[in-house]
Amino acid sequence: MTSGPETTSGPETKQSYAVVGAGAVGGFYGARLTEAGHRVHFLFRGDFAHAKQEGLVVESPLGDVHLGPGELLAYGDPRDLPPCDVVLVATKALVPNPAADLLASMLGPGTEHTTVVTLQNGLGIEEALAPVVGSRTLLGGLCFLCSNKIGPAHVRHLDYGLISLGQHGPTGAAQGVTPPMEQLAADLRGAGIPVALEDDLVAARWKKLIWNAPFNSLSVLLDALPQELLALPEARALVAAVMAEVQAGAAAQGRHIPDAAAQTSMDLTRHMAPYRTSMKLDHDHRRPMEVEAIIGNPIRAAAAHGVDLPVMTTIYRQLCFVDARNQGRLPTLDPA
Amino acid sequence: MTSGPETTSGPETKQSYAVVGAGAVGGFYGARLTEAGHRVHFLFRGDFAHAKQEGLVVESPLGDVHLGPGELLAYGDPRDLPPCDVVLVATKALVPNPAADLLASMLGPGTEHTTVVTLQNGLGIEEALAPVVGSRTLLGGLCFLCSNKIGPAHVRHLDYGLISLGQHGPTGAAQGVTPPMEQLAADLRGAGIPVALEDDLVAARWKKLIWNAPFNSLSVLLDALPQELLALPEARALVAAVMAEVQAGAAAQGRHIPDAAAQTSMDLTRHMAPYRTSMKLDHDHRRPMEVEAIIGNPIRAAAAHGVDLPVMTTIYRQLCFVDARNQGRLPTLDPA
Repeated sequence: MTSGPETTSGPETKQSYAVVGAGAVGGFYGARLTEAGHRVHFLFRGDFAHAKQEGLVVESPLGDVHLGPGELLAYGDPRDLPPCDVVLVATKALVPNPAADLLASMLGPGTEHTTVVTLQNGLGIEEALAPVVGSRTLLGGLCFLCSNKIGPAHVRHLDYGLISLGQHGPTGAAQGVTPPMEQLAADLRGAGIPVALEDDLVAARWKKLIWNAPFNSLSVLLDALPQELLALPEARALVAAVMAEVQAGAAAQGRHIPDAAAQTSMDLTRHMAPYRTSMKLDHDHRRPMEVEAIIGNPIRAAAAHGVDLPVMTTIYRQLCFVDARNQGRLPTLDPA
Repeated sequence: MTSGPETTSGPETKQSYAVVGAGAVGGFYGARLTEAGHRVHFLFRGDFAHAKQEGLVVESPLGDVHLGPGELLAYGDPRDLPPCDVVLVATKALVPNPAADLLASMLGPGTEHTTVVTLQNGLGIEEALAPVVGSRTLLGGLCFLCSNKIGPAHVRHLDYGLISLGQHGPTGAAQGVTPPMEQLAADLRGAGIPVALEDDLVAARWKKLIWNAPFNSLSVLLDALPQELLALPEARALVAAVMAEVQAGAAAQGRHIPDAAAQTSMDLTRHMAPYRTSMKLDHDHRRPMEVEAIIGNPIRAAAAHGVDLPVMTTIYRQLCFVDARNQGRLPTLDPA
């Protein structure tokens, strides 16, 4: 026996994972990491009983994965998960963030060195989780993924999959590329998932909003596919106006998004296969929508620097109305 | 025989009327004027054959009117109407204004002293008709009327009926109260219709937009009754934001609308029986909506004075999209 550092090899050396919210996003990435030999613990919510009995199915052009009930590490209660090296948060980005309570139950003794990675959309996400994450490393991952949950513990991955990774810092300043980011990127790439490393997580989040803010919101308000919005000059002008306000909000926080990014975003959309946005899917299923993460928080972030975003504010208020009705929070009136 | 002015008495002395567009508005006012002893000629469009055979029915809390086929002066072609003292225009305020061509066919020889009164909603209405009205008197009447067409040549008047009358001047400047306004007001009052005389037609049009701009547009975009919009703080804030932009647009044209007018408009709405706005009815029946008259023209009027209305511009672009889809002017795409 030597007194040097322990060396291990094989699966034991691989980082273990917990996936909080094993839906279209968490189910897909968790299944790929499992396939790559990581020990991945999945926290289910409504689908727990089904997952326990039938396992998890992820269909994908990269190869289908079926984790049977014998191999799937499925949990229904966050207190039952063991400490893991990495926790991937993939619940909806609602307000209050449902992941905050779940993480509070999971981040007990033995998790002091756990890295928390939130894969949630929008702005102000890390800020909502930071109090429970404490001194642990907190990363944000922006998923460019086309994946749907088509049944209980049943995910259909259609296309894409890249994760843009950045590290959160307490002041919101750029943290550069850090060792935990490198380590996570290595795991993801080992599982066949492309990764981009971002110096500046806040800038990356604003940049993703260039697409998410106009297309998610207007697809709901106008019952439209992204490509339909680009087919009429007035609607295209509205998409452009929202993109310009995202740029203005980013600039208010000291982040520059070049005009070309907006143009590229429109051009790519025009050539994508028509599909319903995630907010539209939530709306159509009368699920709560990520209105605050995608529209409300950017407005408030800009307002904190004295920048008014009137187009997004109009859209925000409209979405609040639609969301309130979907969630039964409006009085019902009958017309005369 | 004397050489003094001719004196006549009885029905012959009463002004004759033509009603262009005998729907919910024109049918109601025309029927009341007929009841009051005026000779009223009704120009029908799609309902002509029905009106010729069955007459015109106007139900009203003021008393039902049924003008049978023998008494109803119904026309299907604008060239067939005789010259009248007054032409009431009550078609939809679309772009191009459908009344312009109809008036061009009607205002031939013998109509040099005809007064044209447009009862259409919105802004920029007189400007669209002025070229065909020429040197004749052109009045604008804003109808505060709750009336629906419930079948062919069948109108149901529910409540209200006041007409705010003003005179158009070529520069848009206030014209004061003029003799043609007084004469029309006397006829209308004689028919039981309350009239308000407005020094300044443009100011009156802006003031009416305080209600029409927010409630018509948002009732369509959010599939809502006016009272539902007032039930949620975010939607109420949006209504207030549109009202504030109407005030800003009016101010750009030198017209002052006091803040109290906006507050009063909300308060009255809260206490009205819930009903669908006229734009919502048009939308639900897939008819063209008065988007330009109620939203587009005010935006352009303000822009001509360098004033930007971003909330109304957002709403305008959304309505253009909805209208284009209703009218089959969008390509159809199927989601993946």
